Amino acid sequence: MTDTTTARLNDVDIDAVGALVQSVQTDPAAASTTWAARVQWNRGFASEAKVRSFSPIPSDEPAALGGGDSAPNPVEQLLGALGNCLAVGYAANATVAGIALRDLRVELKGELDLQAFLGLADGHAGFNSIVATVTIDSDASRDELEALHAKVSGSSPVGHTIAHAVPLDLVLA
Amino acid sequence: MTDTTTARLNDVDIDAVGALVQSVQTDPAAASTTWAARVQWNRGFASEAKVRSFSPIPSDEPAALGGGDSAPNPVEQLLGALGNCLAVGYAANATVAGIALRDLRVELKGELDLQAFLGLADGHAGFNSIVATVTIDSDASRDELEALHAKVSGSSPVGHTIAHAVPLDLVLA
Repeated sequence: MTDTTTARLNDVDIDAVGALVQSVQTDPAAASTTWAARVQWNRGFASEAKVRSFSPIPSDEPAALGGGDSAPNPVEQLLGALGNCLAVGYAANATVAGIALRDLRVELKGELDLQAFLGLADGHAGFNSIVATVTIDSDASRDELEALHAKVSGSSPVGHTIAHAVPLDLVLA
Repeated sequence: MTDTTTARLNDVDIDAVGALVQSVQTDPAAASTTWAARVQWNRGFASEAKVRSFSPIPSDEPAALGGGDSAPNPVEQLLGALGNCLAVGYAANATVAGIALRDLRVELKGELDLQAFLGLADGHAGFNSIVATVTIDSDASRDELEALHAKVSGSSPVGHTIAHAVPLDLVLA
């Protein structure tokens, strides 16, 4: 939005990340963060998620699932959140490693058996598996990109939330 | 968008859900679904997730994390996806149970330690815990709402993806 006085690698504000790292090193409690969202049901299978003061993220289901097909559905949003998280991880770690990225895309696919969601079977209603394929356009070597990939895989907040069992408390007010 | 000839409970197209249930009962393979999203990095910590032909879901990080603060960040999107998923689950199961919902909201909160994301510690970079609090406005009894809540908790695709360890394959193309 504004001119920067110096060109920044990958347009990443690495000084801000460095300042955060320093504050967490001084006080590890500074790393404890709380994130929030509020969802409003809009009748049928439509709803929207509000985060801070941003425009709501609309949600609906395809017609075959009984929805109005007006927006991505929640499992598609989850895949999108994973891809967006990986993009941040690559941008951050590439910048720290001095790697310039020309382009970065992530293709996400997940397999899901609807039987538990439809009440036709007990058990796991979530994704059975998810694959995220990252395509990077960069002059970095394959070895550098693989080291970058390993770093991102080992530190993705959304990736780890999916790959590990996270305590989830669903409360009826 | 169009007039319906009969009023539908909670505006849910329960006939479409019923048709899907019937097709899965006839052929369980019909329950196997694949979902997808494509993410494009937009430099810095900004990116967007595209799902089918819908408007992209924008993503960015707060300034304190080095971003441009132009959109919800990926972990907030994950919380939003969970709330949107629970909304579908309540709407579907309430309709099947004959419960009319006047309003439904979900407040989501998640605790996340940034040390792993920042590369200051190995281990779990994801949410340590997530709480979703559902507020329902309905004439249904507390017992009916608790039975509904149990049903939704036991069958939420995004909820189960978070609460269980899902095989996640991150591939560098």
